[in-house]
Amino acid sequence: MYGAGDVRVENVPDPTLQAPTDAVVRVVRACVCGSDLHPFHTMPASAQGSPMGHEFIGVVEEIGSDVATLQRGDFVIAPFAYSDNTCEFCREGLHTSCRQGGFFSTAQAEAVRVPLADGTLVKAPVGEDSALLPSLLTLSDVFLTGHHAAVRAGVNPRTTVTVIGDGAVGLSAVLAAKRLGAERIVLMGRHKDRTDLGREFGATDVVAERGEKGIANVRELTGGDGTHTVLECVGYMSAYEMAYGVVRVGGVISRVGVPQYEEAPIGFGSLFGRNITLTGGPAPVRAYIEELLPDVLEGRIEPGKVFDRTVGLDAVPEGYRAMDAREALKVLVQP
Amino acid sequence: MYGAGDVRVENVPDPTLQAPTDAVVRVVRACVCGSDLHPFHTMPASAQGSPMGHEFIGVVEEIGSDVATLQRGDFVIAPFAYSDNTCEFCREGLHTSCRQGGFFSTAQAEAVRVPLADGTLVKAPVGEDSALLPSLLTLSDVFLTGHHAAVRAGVNPRTTVTVIGDGAVGLSAVLAAKRLGAERIVLMGRHKDRTDLGREFGATDVVAERGEKGIANVRELTGGDGTHTVLECVGYMSAYEMAYGVVRVGGVISRVGVPQYEEAPIGFGSLFGRNITLTGGPAPVRAYIEELLPDVLEGRIEPGKVFDRTVGLDAVPEGYRAMDAREALKVLVQP
Repeated sequence: MYGAGDVRVENVPDPTLQAPTDAVVRVVRACVCGSDLHPFHTMPASAQGSPMGHEFIGVVEEIGSDVATLQRGDFVIAPFAYSDNTCEFCREGLHTSCRQGGFFSTAQAEAVRVPLADGTLVKAPVGEDSALLPSLLTLSDVFLTGHHAAVRAGVNPRTTVTVIGDGAVGLSAVLAAKRLGAERIVLMGRHKDRTDLGREFGATDVVAERGEKGIANVRELTGGDGTHTVLECVGYMSAYEMAYGVVRVGGVISRVGVPQYEEAPIGFGSLFGRNITLTGGPAPVRAYIEELLPDVLEGRIEPGKVFDRTVGLDAVPEGYRAMDAREALKVLVQP
Repeated sequence: MYGAGDVRVENVPDPTLQAPTDAVVRVVRACVCGSDLHPFHTMPASAQGSPMGHEFIGVVEEIGSDVATLQRGDFVIAPFAYSDNTCEFCREGLHTSCRQGGFFSTAQAEAVRVPLADGTLVKAPVGEDSALLPSLLTLSDVFLTGHHAAVRAGVNPRTTVTVIGDGAVGLSAVLAAKRLGAERIVLMGRHKDRTDLGREFGATDVVAERGEKGIANVRELTGGDGTHTVLECVGYMSAYEMAYGVVRVGGVISRVGVPQYEEAPIGFGSLFGRNITLTGGPAPVRAYIEELLPDVLEGRIEPGKVFDRTVGLDAVPEGYRAMDAREALKVLVQP
């Protein structure tokens, strides 16, 4: 990406092992993330450009001399953040804050160098032709980001849920909340094709309105009180404002949409007076993959349904355009 | 209170029963709250004035015809909020959001009308001459506000704790954290006589510096990482800024100081990026009294040590002045 709206496909040197703990993974599937659209809107023009992409699954091509758990040919899922999986923070499930870790940023490509490969990559017993690839790819970020929102919010069979946002993360959050037992899931979104998928994933109610009207509608659906948990899957201030508008007394707002603001209301009138909890952050995807993988492999959930378009590498710029124009919900990249 | 700095003692009509669920309680002890100092600083001058005070213990003098659990002569503790103790929110321990509830505001007085007396008042088996009165009075607000901060933060033997503020709430939070098993409690406060009481209550470290220097010192004490929990017991923006400065990755900031701001940083750089949780609010004191009362009655804790001055009703204005000047930590009122 060379600036807002300016995505180019270029030949760059193949990635190589740089540390003995590295692996090189050939990308079998990657995708475009809603968060990639933020620089697509705002990035200043740059002569140098930035590589893009942080979600991928693929096949191990090379391993460094210290890599112990992987072999060439292994099919692997890469979390969007690499991590040693051994430090204090990783052991607590906070992999996005790993002491040695960092974030991938070159995954919309043919191959990726993976630091800390033993800690980062999770093997999956599938072939490159598996029908499960789209769903497996969602374990790299989008589905587990929705899952993180639901886990942090404490979603369970006794909690009512509002999901704000009908993008791929929001729909993933619906699916995650349903999986955790939520029986009442209100999805706030105004794109019918998307909210229809949300209903398929488990939403019991859809509120298309936004702002004050949307808040009023969610409250009306919940006896005036709002829901115990709110999964904020957008990141804009308007979404945050809806979140504290629809959350019930003593409830939890869990954010996973990357905030496009730094300051926001948290005082007596918004959070404090009603004992509202605010939580969330970048999903420590690595902490969740092994737990959720069987549900995907055994077909109990199909989070890959969020992909509604597939492009080759050459068409990645078109993929960005289509997602930005909301013509596509989420774009799968097949190098 | 007739305006900032203007507290007067006046004769007003005695409170009377207004609803069959009311009681009238003769005040045996009341006190001045740190939150009373906010209007003491900022209240516009008013011809009418506002009654003050929300913390009291006393003796039931009259009961309405529907009051079933209380009798004249019962010694009772009043939470700073009245509540029915039966609605959905109360059953969930959210008494400050009781559907019928509200807040006391006339407790610096000889007697108080108590709405919803059955739900609100908790009997204590003591006499008016008990040496436990100061500690029992802290169950009306200050100690249980500190307790609420610690409970909401999830303090336990495995969590390190920073308490921000060496006022009576902060010191109460230290005692509450200690009671919940915390082994490492860093108290941020710069008044040695107060932090000495904090050490007696369980603080293992005291950081007198504020701002960036204070943050650096807490981080140095904790291997660079900060503490799992931060109990913010002040309410000013500067305290909140210290809170997110000293909280550990994945940690919890629990606020009980009434925020003197509405907007504050909560974006990627402050809370989101490190998966920090923000919680807290007005303490649902009523939910905690029965659990903590035995610890006071049996002398296991002595939260009443926060009172370091006692005044009669006539000297309440002087009590405000002394607390505001930090000559007194917390002022007990003995009508």
